[in-house]
Amino acid sequence: MLSDRLKEYISRIKPLDTDAMERARVRLENLAKPPGSLGRLEDIVEKLAGISGALFYDTSKRCVIIMSGDNGVFEEGVAATPQSVTYAQTINFARGLTGVAAIAKQFNTDLIITDVGINADIDFPGVRNRKIRKATWNIAKGDAMTYAEAEQAILVGIETGIEAAGSGYKLLGAGEMGIANTTTSAAVLCALTGLPAEQIAGKGAGLKEAAYRHKIEVVRNAVQNNKPDVSDAVDVLSKVGGFELAAMTGVFLGGAIARVPVVIDGFVSIVAALCAARISPVAKDYMIASHASFEQGFVHAANALGVEPYMNLNMRLGEGSGCPIMFALIDAACAAMRDMATFEEAEINDEYVDEIRAGDSFTIR
Amino acid sequence: MLSDRLKEYISRIKPLDTDAMERARVRLENLAKPPGSLGRLEDIVEKLAGISGALFYDTSKRCVIIMSGDNGVFEEGVAATPQSVTYAQTINFARGLTGVAAIAKQFNTDLIITDVGINADIDFPGVRNRKIRKATWNIAKGDAMTYAEAEQAILVGIETGIEAAGSGYKLLGAGEMGIANTTTSAAVLCALTGLPAEQIAGKGAGLKEAAYRHKIEVVRNAVQNNKPDVSDAVDVLSKVGGFELAAMTGVFLGGAIARVPVVIDGFVSIVAALCAARISPVAKDYMIASHASFEQGFVHAANALGVEPYMNLNMRLGEGSGCPIMFALIDAACAAMRDMATFEEAEINDEYVDEIRAGDSFTIR
Repeated sequence: MLSDRLKEYISRIKPLDTDAMERARVRLENLAKPPGSLGRLEDIVEKLAGISGALFYDTSKRCVIIMSGDNGVFEEGVAATPQSVTYAQTINFARGLTGVAAIAKQFNTDLIITDVGINADIDFPGVRNRKIRKATWNIAKGDAMTYAEAEQAILVGIETGIEAAGSGYKLLGAGEMGIANTTTSAAVLCALTGLPAEQIAGKGAGLKEAAYRHKIEVVRNAVQNNKPDVSDAVDVLSKVGGFELAAMTGVFLGGAIARVPVVIDGFVSIVAALCAARISPVAKDYMIASHASFEQGFVHAANALGVEPYMNLNMRLGEGSGCPIMFALIDAACAAMRDMATFEEAEINDEYVDEIRAGDSFTIR
Repeated sequence: MLSDRLKEYISRIKPLDTDAMERARVRLENLAKPPGSLGRLEDIVEKLAGISGALFYDTSKRCVIIMSGDNGVFEEGVAATPQSVTYAQTINFARGLTGVAAIAKQFNTDLIITDVGINADIDFPGVRNRKIRKATWNIAKGDAMTYAEAEQAILVGIETGIEAAGSGYKLLGAGEMGIANTTTSAAVLCALTGLPAEQIAGKGAGLKEAAYRHKIEVVRNAVQNNKPDVSDAVDVLSKVGGFELAAMTGVFLGGAIARVPVVIDGFVSIVAALCAARISPVAKDYMIASHASFEQGFVHAANALGVEPYMNLNMRLGEGSGCPIMFALIDAACAAMRDMATFEEAEINDEYVDEIRAGDSFTIR
């Protein structure tokens, strides 16, 4: 059962402004181009109008919110990378050295780096301490966390998203760092969709075949043994999820509360988005997919959520690395909406046009 | 038969530098990320190394080369838009008012606007006059142009591409404006692939059903009656193509000659890319696909060329409007290559790392 505090937050999520979307549609149809020819860029423009209530959207201030946490299930040997990498890369986000940091810088995107459960003490400039606990428990041996901890992590995400919007960020992205979190994300997705573990669990950052088969077993057993209540995403997150996954769920909810779009990155990010949509179906309208992750469970999460990614990059880095690239696509949509001429503005009246309209200007063999 | 001048140009197209590609691969594998986790962005980095011979690629100066021309087949009623729009929008490119102009501005991209066959005299700042003739002949009644004219248009494209590279542009895009040119492009693609017109011809900018059925007939009959030599793309362009299509073919060849990548836009652009690859198979290595056009023939052209687009935007605007967005994806690839830390640079030596390596730091329930 959700706490009153979480319920109150969720009650603030309101539907899109359909009047503004209709006004955006009218302008898009008046731009000097064949109707609908900007394709899905037009859908983005409409969504932004529905979110903001305005025709034009200023995308210049944007950020990726990165939630870092460790997963107790690491000890089962389900990850190809040492657990210390969660810590090291979280520091490296702040140092500007990781994939998402490099790509974010290219696209004028800030990073909001948050420790929600790294398995070590961190005191580094630019890394926020919102630690729930040092790593979740091992889902192969019991629940990942208590229900109250899951709510706490979600609230960290909600409040980080609301605060970012309050600071003027108009585009948010939801990224993560957490060695072994494709295992916990797969378990959550299995619980929420009912699909078998072998269709959902992937090779993450590069598992060998035997470890991969073990990962599938771990996911299957965790869902069977921990018995998440599949009608309650918070319970699912507490039984088989992770702190960073729950906090990202909160970011999607927080964006919807504050009426700013939240861009989905890869596999972990889309599982968090699905959790958010299960908690508040209206929150889905504030989400924008980006790329199709290489991780095999991604497509099932996208289907369950009902979104279609815009890019096929075969990326499997995580971190939120796809979000700044999607921000560029959103920039393109907004630029077209803002700077293209309407048919009236584009019209050129001269002899040629009259001539062509008379139909006698062809050079015919 | 190709002229000696065109043959000489084509002989200058050389394979990619595989040593540089290998060096790029080594660095990509040393970056602090799971191997291959940047997916197709890594392929882009490798290709740019193969093109330039260097590990890092400066993408800051880039342009879309737009070829504008009219198509005599317009008089068959195969287009939903008046022919005057070719003229009007070419002016509007220079005025910064079209879709590609808006999107190009967003991504610091210049436009090189070239008249190769608009059906009117144009004298407007920023529009280059390389006119072959005022519109091609109607392919429903005979050949579109002479073989010499097709070569002339290709040479315009080659020389524009080489000149752009000489001016410091490091990324080129190939765009177009030409009412009715999805009909001529479809005819060229039918000839080059042997596929039936009904699989290739699409509804372009928004044809009604009856006009669409007529378009299919026009395409089928043009290929049957004009009898292009399918082993010679120049002959195909002359029999059923267009000036802008031939000139764009030249842009792809010119980029390869000057060793700069050329980004493919939508349907017309990819048909030109296929023509270029038929004239010089090595030229394909200098091409980068961008988005999958909504026009149904696109996928067949992509398959014939052997490229896979990076974005699914359902766009069908043409103009080169997808190219600047792809430039942003290329920026992302280059930023990751340039700014990410290697494993060595990313390493953090502290107690935590030692602790984790000893395996005793878990908080286990």
